[in-house]
Amino acid sequence: MKFLMPTLVYSEENCVLSHSAELASLGSRALIVTGKSSARRCGAFADVTAALDKHGVSWVEFAEVEENPSVETIMRARQVGCKVKADFVIGIGGGSPMDAAKAIALMIRHHDQDWEYLYDKTAETSTLPIAEIPTTAGTGSEVTAVSVLTRHDKHVKGSIPHKIFADLALIDGKYLSGMPEQILANTTMDALCHLYESYIHSAATDFSRMCAEAGIKVWARSKDIVLGKREASPEDYQNMMNASCMAGMAIAHTATSMPHALSYRLTYSAHMAHGKACGYFLAGYLREADPVEVNHILSLAGFKTVEELEEYYVVTCGRDEVPLEILEQSVEEVFANKGKCKLPPFPVYEAVIRRIAGI
Amino acid sequence: MKFLMPTLVYSEENCVLSHSAELASLGSRALIVTGKSSARRCGAFADVTAALDKHGVSWVEFAEVEENPSVETIMRARQVGCKVKADFVIGIGGGSPMDAAKAIALMIRHHDQDWEYLYDKTAETSTLPIAEIPTTAGTGSEVTAVSVLTRHDKHVKGSIPHKIFADLALIDGKYLSGMPEQILANTTMDALCHLYESYIHSAATDFSRMCAEAGIKVWARSKDIVLGKREASPEDYQNMMNASCMAGMAIAHTATSMPHALSYRLTYSAHMAHGKACGYFLAGYLREADPVEVNHILSLAGFKTVEELEEYYVVTCGRDEVPLEILEQSVEEVFANKGKCKLPPFPVYEAVIRRIAGI
Repeated sequence: MKFLMPTLVYSEENCVLSHSAELASLGSRALIVTGKSSARRCGAFADVTAALDKHGVSWVEFAEVEENPSVETIMRARQVGCKVKADFVIGIGGGSPMDAAKAIALMIRHHDQDWEYLYDKTAETSTLPIAEIPTTAGTGSEVTAVSVLTRHDKHVKGSIPHKIFADLALIDGKYLSGMPEQILANTTMDALCHLYESYIHSAATDFSRMCAEAGIKVWARSKDIVLGKREASPEDYQNMMNASCMAGMAIAHTATSMPHALSYRLTYSAHMAHGKACGYFLAGYLREADPVEVNHILSLAGFKTVEELEEYYVVTCGRDEVPLEILEQSVEEVFANKGKCKLPPFPVYEAVIRRIAGI
Repeated sequence: MKFLMPTLVYSEENCVLSHSAELASLGSRALIVTGKSSARRCGAFADVTAALDKHGVSWVEFAEVEENPSVETIMRARQVGCKVKADFVIGIGGGSPMDAAKAIALMIRHHDQDWEYLYDKTAETSTLPIAEIPTTAGTGSEVTAVSVLTRHDKHVKGSIPHKIFADLALIDGKYLSGMPEQILANTTMDALCHLYESYIHSAATDFSRMCAEAGIKVWARSKDIVLGKREASPEDYQNMMNASCMAGMAIAHTATSMPHALSYRLTYSAHMAHGKACGYFLAGYLREADPVEVNHILSLAGFKTVEELEEYYVVTCGRDEVPLEILEQSVEEVFANKGKCKLPPFPVYEAVIRRIAGI
C-alpha cells in the first residue's frame, strides 16, 4: 500500500495571512484562479491579495471559472497566465476553481502544448507551483491530485489523467460563514460521500481508512449545523473544512466509487449540484456493502441505520425526481466502464448498479 | 493546525524490489548507511543493493552506525560519502541508522561545514535525497523529521534542530521475521509510546490524532504475537511496521512527550534499550492524563486499564530495577527543561514528573 500526501496543509483561522510568507515563497507573479464572485464574497480573495501585496508578489486575476469547468476555460486561463508571465497559480473556491488551478498550472508549464495534452496519459506532469484555498467544505481538492474537467466535445465531465498535488493548502473555516444553507448542505454531503466511498472501496488500505475514519468523526461534529439545529461557531466551520480535507486525503489514496461515478450524468444532464447528485446514490451504495463495515462507519457519523442517513439526505439536500431516462443512461454508462465497476469492494453486475440507482 | 507528511511511503512485501525504479531515481551513487550487521541479516541490504544494481546505480556502504549514533560517527560517514561523491543516502535499520542517514545527508550536502552545523538552529536544512528502509517496527524514523544523536562531549542524546524528512520510505514486514523476541517487544513498545504520547500531548490536533488512533488500532492486531500467544504471519509483521509508521506520522506532528524525555537518561546511563526505557514511564504518564482520553486509547489497543498495560509491559519487556540516582537525575534534567515540561496537556510540577518516574 502507498501513502502520499505531499501538500503542506495549514488549517486554522486567518491562515492565509499568518502563512503569507509560505504563500509568497511559491513565486513572484501569481495567477489567481476563481469563480465569478464567491471568492470575493467570502473574503478569501481579499486575504490572498493582502498576503501577496505584503510580500511584494504581483498577481493577476482570472475570475471566469464556471461550475464544472471546461477545457476551453483552462485554455483561456493559460493564455492569461502566459501573457503576464505568471510563475505560480493560486486556486480559490470550491472544487471547480481548485481543480481548474491544477490544470492551468500544468498547461502554463507546458505552454507550447495544445489542449489535448490535458488528456495525454503518456505526457509528463510537471506544473507551476500551486496553492489552493478552499471556500467550501466539500471537494477536498486542496489535498487531492484530481482535476475534474468538462469536455463539451464529448458531453462528459471526468478526471484528467494527470495527478497534480498542490504545494500548499490554506484552509480557513471563516470563508464558510456567509454560505447559503443549501450549498453548505450539498457540499458537506459531497465530503461525506468521499469519506464513505473511500472507506467502502476495493482500493481501501489502513492508510486510506486512517484518513476516512478520522474525517467521518470530525464530519459528525457539525451535522447539527446542517440540520439547522444550532448556530455554527468558528470551530464548527473549521471542523467542516477539516472533515472535507481528511476526505480529500482519503480519496487521494482510493479515488471515489459508485455514487460519484453515477453522479456525473445527473450533474451534466439534470443540472443537479455535485454533492447532492453523489448523495443521491449513497444509501443505495451502502446497502450493497458489508453490513459490519457499513454499521461501523454509520455509527462513527452518528447514524443508526442507512435509513437514518437517507432521511438526513432528504432533509438537508432534498429529494428531486430524476427523469428515469437519465438514471438509465447513467447506469448504462457506468456499467460499460470496466474500471468503474472495479471500484466497489463487492461484485458489480448491472442489477447491482440499478439497485444503487434506485431503478 | 498543520499537516505535513512529504515522504512517499510504500508498505508491502518486497517493496524495495518492486519500487526499485523510484529508489534508483534519487541519484546515481548511493551511500548506504547501516548498523554493524542487522541490515544484512534481515535481508534488507541484499534487496537494496539488488534494486540499485538493477538500475545501474553504484553504491558504497557505511556499516558503522552504533546504537545511539554519535556526532563523530556522522562526521566519519560524511567523509566516506564525500570521498565517493555520493549523491543520495539510504538508511537501513532501526532508528539509529535511519536517524544517522538524515544527519549524514545534511552534512554531505553542507560538506564545507564542521560538526557544529548539526546543532545550528539558524542553519539551512537542505540535504541530499534520502530513502529509509526500516528493519524494526519501533522508531517510525522513516516518516519523521527527527534525527536523534549522541553528544559524548555533553554526555546526552537528543534531537538535532534540523527537521529532515526522507523522500522515500520502503517498508517491508519480512525484515522483522528473524528478529529476536526481546527486540521485537522493546521496539513495538517504542511504537506504542509514540502513539500514546502523541495522542496525550499539548500539541495534539485532529490530524495528529488521525494518525495516532489508526496506529493504535493497527498496533493492537499484533499484541498477541509479542505476548507469544501465536506465531506471526507476514501480515502480522506488516501490521507491526504500519503501526510504527503511523506512530511516526503522529509524532512528526506533535513530537513525543514525557516518557521519551525521561527515557534518554536511562538509555545513556543505565544502558536500557530505547523502547523499554520509554515504556518504563508510560503507565505513569497515562495516570496523570484525562481519564476519558486515556480509556479511549487504552480500549483502542485492547487494554481495559492502565494496570493491564503495565502488566503487558512487564511481561513483554521485563521490569528492571533502575538505580534511584539515575531516576532522580532524569527527573531533575527534565524538570529543568521548560520546553519538555510543556509537552503534556496537563500542568507539570516536579511532583508530577516524580510520580511518572515512580519515585
